[in-house]
Amino acid sequence: MNAEGAPHPTSTINDVVHQKARLGILAVLAEADRADFTYLKSLLQLTDGNLGRHLEVLAGQGLVQVEKGYSGRRPRTRVTITRTGRQALEEEMRAIRELLRRFDEGSG
Amino acid sequence: MNAEGAPHPTSTINDVVHQKARLGILAVLAEADRADFTYLKSLLQLTDGNLGRHLEVLAGQGLVQVEKGYSGRRPRTRVTITRTGRQALEEEMRAIRELLRRFDEGSG
Repeated sequence: MNAEGAPHPTSTINDVVHQKARLGILAVLAEADRADFTYLKSLLQLTDGNLGRHLEVLAGQGLVQVEKGYSGRRPRTRVTITRTGRQALEEEMRAIRELLRRFDEGSG
Repeated sequence: MNAEGAPHPTSTINDVVHQKARLGILAVLAEADRADFTYLKSLLQLTDGNLGRHLEVLAGQGLVQVEKGYSGRRPRTRVTITRTGRQALEEEMRAIRELLRRFDEGSG
């Protein structure tokens, strides 16, 4: 326990959401609601395989929905954030905001 | 690429520092300079094995120094953050600050 008796902010962090690629995916989707696979890939500088695996993890936890369809003849995969995904991202943002606050206090 | 032409803040994140237990260790050490193994373990709610492994990763990258010694007859392990560790933590804080800024703008 620390002096304030509260758990350290990092101990409340959920690894599913905190991992950098998944955090990027959720943050982009929270702004855009829905994004194409190719857009996420280039924005977050991920490979197809990498993005695919992280989307599976997020979809497996109900944090995003992945829709495979077509745009004309070309396959097009669209990703949407769920309400659960938004809540999970908000919790992550709360934890890192608290971490930053302590960091700024400590170095101020 | 995004509208601002800059990489997304999560793409600049270093996984060694970002992982939640290691981020916790570095954040605590940045405040305290030096901490005991047992203190870190209880504050961050980690097991011996877990904390030991994360310290090895951090020490392997030159981000912390681990000193094994004695306090009377009892073994005592003390951990210090290095200058490189402080710099790496500052970069992480910069990335998550930017992420939060965008999140707040998007939901504001």
